[in-house]
Amino acid sequence: MNAEILAVGTELLLGDIANTNAQFLSKELSALGIDVFFHSVVGDNQNRLKSALELAFSRSDIVITTGGLGPTYDDLTKETASELLGAKLILNEEALKRIKAFFERIGRQMVVSNEKQALLPTGCVPFQNDCGTAPGFGLKKDGKVLMMLPGPPREMTEMFSKSAKPFLAELSDSVMLSKEIRVFGIGESSCEEKIKDLTECKNPTLAPYAKSGEVLLRITAKANSLEEAENLIKPMADEVISRLKPYIYGVNVSSLQEVLVHLLLEKGKKIAVAESCTGGLLAKRITEISGASQVFECGIVAYANHIKEQILGVKSETLSQFGAVSEQTAIEMALGVKKLANSHFGVGITGIAGPNGGTEEKPVGLVFVAVVDEQNRPTVRRLMLGRGQNEREYVRYAAASNAMDMVIKLIRDKG
Amino acid sequence: MNAEILAVGTELLLGDIANTNAQFLSKELSALGIDVFFHSVVGDNQNRLKSALELAFSRSDIVITTGGLGPTYDDLTKETASELLGAKLILNEEALKRIKAFFERIGRQMVVSNEKQALLPTGCVPFQNDCGTAPGFGLKKDGKVLMMLPGPPREMTEMFSKSAKPFLAELSDSVMLSKEIRVFGIGESSCEEKIKDLTECKNPTLAPYAKSGEVLLRITAKANSLEEAENLIKPMADEVISRLKPYIYGVNVSSLQEVLVHLLLEKGKKIAVAESCTGGLLAKRITEISGASQVFECGIVAYANHIKEQILGVKSETLSQFGAVSEQTAIEMALGVKKLANSHFGVGITGIAGPNGGTEEKPVGLVFVAVVDEQNRPTVRRLMLGRGQNEREYVRYAAASNAMDMVIKLIRDKG
Repeated sequence: MNAEILAVGTELLLGDIANTNAQFLSKELSALGIDVFFHSVVGDNQNRLKSALELAFSRSDIVITTGGLGPTYDDLTKETASELLGAKLILNEEALKRIKAFFERIGRQMVVSNEKQALLPTGCVPFQNDCGTAPGFGLKKDGKVLMMLPGPPREMTEMFSKSAKPFLAELSDSVMLSKEIRVFGIGESSCEEKIKDLTECKNPTLAPYAKSGEVLLRITAKANSLEEAENLIKPMADEVISRLKPYIYGVNVSSLQEVLVHLLLEKGKKIAVAESCTGGLLAKRITEISGASQVFECGIVAYANHIKEQILGVKSETLSQFGAVSEQTAIEMALGVKKLANSHFGVGITGIAGPNGGTEEKPVGLVFVAVVDEQNRPTVRRLMLGRGQNEREYVRYAAASNAMDMVIKLIRDKG
Repeated sequence: MNAEILAVGTELLLGDIANTNAQFLSKELSALGIDVFFHSVVGDNQNRLKSALELAFSRSDIVITTGGLGPTYDDLTKETASELLGAKLILNEEALKRIKAFFERIGRQMVVSNEKQALLPTGCVPFQNDCGTAPGFGLKKDGKVLMMLPGPPREMTEMFSKSAKPFLAELSDSVMLSKEIRVFGIGESSCEEKIKDLTECKNPTLAPYAKSGEVLLRITAKANSLEEAENLIKPMADEVISRLKPYIYGVNVSSLQEVLVHLLLEKGKKIAVAESCTGGLLAKRITEISGASQVFECGIVAYANHIKEQILGVKSETLSQFGAVSEQTAIEMALGVKKLANSHFGVGITGIAGPNGGTEEKPVGLVFVAVVDEQNRPTVRRLMLGRGQNEREYVRYAAASNAMDMVIKLIRDKG
C-alpha cells in the first residue's frame, strides 16, 4: 500500500505556515507500514485541486487530504473529491449535532455555512471532530482509499489518532515498530560519531534527530508481527544504550519535562523554580505536563533585582559583589524559592539571553543554573549557550532543559 | 509567471523533517510577485522523480527543486532534470575549487563523489554554495526556468538570498505588497462573516488565517510599483479596520506580546503577572520580546494555594468562600503581584486547564483573567475556553492571550 498526502490551502503556498500536517501524517503512516511516495500542496482553486486529486488517484492507493474543509471552502474540496469517486454528499446528523453543540459550548452563533460542513459522501466512515467543526471521513471505493482531514493541526492530529489511524491500520499488512531513545548533554556530532556504524543497518534502522540541544535516536523495525519487530529492535537498543548511557534521560518518552514530572510524582517530591533569563519558560514547560500541579509548588520570574532580593532573599551584597548573572546569585535564587515554597528541590536560573545586555566578561549566552537538594546542597552548571545572533529563544530553551536534566540526574543518582 | 516547488528527499516522506524550505521559498516568491501554485515532495527514486519533474514542467513556468544534490544522490536529480531540458552536464571549475576548499577548511578528505557535485548543466547560471559543497544553478530554456537548490535549509536560504533571488527578480515584472491586520476576541467564523464580501476581491486579495484563537487578515496587492500596490491596499485596509475596529490589536505586527511590550516601553509603564493555570506561559511570552526586562517586573506562578496566600496575599476566606478558580481570587492575585512588584499594572490568571480537575460547576476551560490598573481598578474576563479533550495547551495559550489583550486595551483606552 502506498499513500499520497495532498494538502489544500493557499496559506501553504504563500509560505504562511509550514506543512507540518504532512510531516505528522508521514510519521504515522510509516509506523503503520504504509509507504508515502508523494506530498503535494495545492491552493483553493477548483481546477488545480481537481487535477491534483486525479493525479493522486492515478498514482497512489491511498489519498489523504488535509485542509479545505472550513465553512468557506467546503464545497470545493469535499465535492470535488466525492465527485471524482462517484459518491454523493449527504447530511451526517451526528456531525451536524456536534457542530451545533460546539457553537453552543463556545457561546457563539452558528452560521449557515457551518451547516454544510456536516455533508459527507455516501458509504464513508465519518471521523467526528472533537476540537472544531469540520468532520473528516475515510472512504473505500474501487480499490482506492480517500481520507479527508481538517487543516488545523490540532483538529487533524486529534482526529487522526482517534478515527483515521484505526481505519488505516485495517488496510495494512505489515507492522512498523519504533523505540525512541532521548539524549541530552552531548553535542549532535559527538553523539552521531559514537553510533555512526549502527546507522548503516537496514532493519532495524537507527536515525538520529537533533533539535534544540537534544538528540532523539529512533530505532525502527519493519516486520510481520509486533513480536518479530521487538526482537529486531532489542539488540540495537541495548547497544545504543550501552554506548550513550550517561546522556540518556529516557526511552519512549516525549520530553525532559515529562520525565521530570513523572519522577517527582513517583518519589512524592515537590519542586519550585526561580527564573531570570528564562522568564517563565521553565515553569511553563513543567506545567505543560498534566499532573504537574501535584509536584510544582511555585515559580518566581524575578527579572528585576529588587524582586530577587525582596521575594527570593538574594543578598544585596551578592548582587553587588558577583552580579545578578553569577553562580552565587543562581544558588541564592534556588535556596530562596525552595524556602518560600517549602519544596524538596529548588532551581535558580540567571543569565544573559540576548540579543542585548552582553559584556566581554559576561557575554550573551552565559547562564548559571543552580539546583539545591533537600539538604540545601547546591549543584551548579555554568553554561555558554551562545550560538551567534538571534539566539535568545535557543539560550532560554537550553537553559531550561539543563535545569530539568540536573534535577532528573539528582533524583536518579540518589536511587 | 507561476512556480512549483519540488522537494527531493525521503526524509520528508518519512516525516523526519517538515518542508520548511517550501515555506521559505513560497514567502520569497510571493514577495517577488511570482505565484506558487504547487508544492510537491518526492523521494530519492529515479522514476518518481522523473515523472514529478515532467509534470512540473508541464504545468509551471518556473520549477524550483530543493535537495537531491548531495554526493550520493547527485546523478539522480541533476541528471534527470538536465536531461529533461536537453542540457549536458559539464564541470564547473569554480564550484570544484570551492568544494576542495570546503574540505580543506573542515579538515576532511574529499571523496570522488563530491567531485561530481561540481557538474552543472550547460548554459546555466551557477549559484555557489557558501555553507556546504553542492552548488545550485538557474537555467532558462525554451520558455521554462529550472532552478536547483541544495536541501539543508542553511545552505538553501543563504544561496537563495545571494544568488537565486537576483536571478528570479529579473524574470518578474511586478511587485507584491502585503499588509497584515491582527484581530483578537472574535471567532474565526464571525470574523469571516463580517468581511466575506471583501474576500472576493481579486486585487488586492484579502485572506483570513486563524490560529490559536486569533485571526490574521492579510491584504495583498500585485502591481507594477510599490506605490501603486500601496494605493490598492489602502481602501481595503480602511474598510477592514472600520468593520473590525474593536477587535484589532495591531497592523503589521507579529504578536500580542510584541504590541504589549512596545506599548509599555512607549508609556514607560511596568507590569507584573500572577499565574495559576497558565503556569508561566504569560511571563514566558512577554519575556520572549527583547527589551521586556525594562517593563516586566516579575511573574509569580502560584500553583499551590499556600503560595497564593503567602506570596500574593490572597485572603484565605476568598479561597474558601469562592474557590481558587474565581473572579475574586483572580483580582486578589492581580492586586497582590502588583503590590509586590510595585508595578503599574497587575495581572491575575486562575482557571482549569485540564484535562483533569474540572467539575460540573467549574468545567475544564473555565478561566478568570483579572487586570488591575494604576488605581487598583480591576477588569475581569470570565472565559470558557474548553474545546473538547487534550485542550490543555489551547486553554493556557488563549488565557494568556486574553490577559495581554486586556492590558493593551486598558492602556489604549486611556489614550
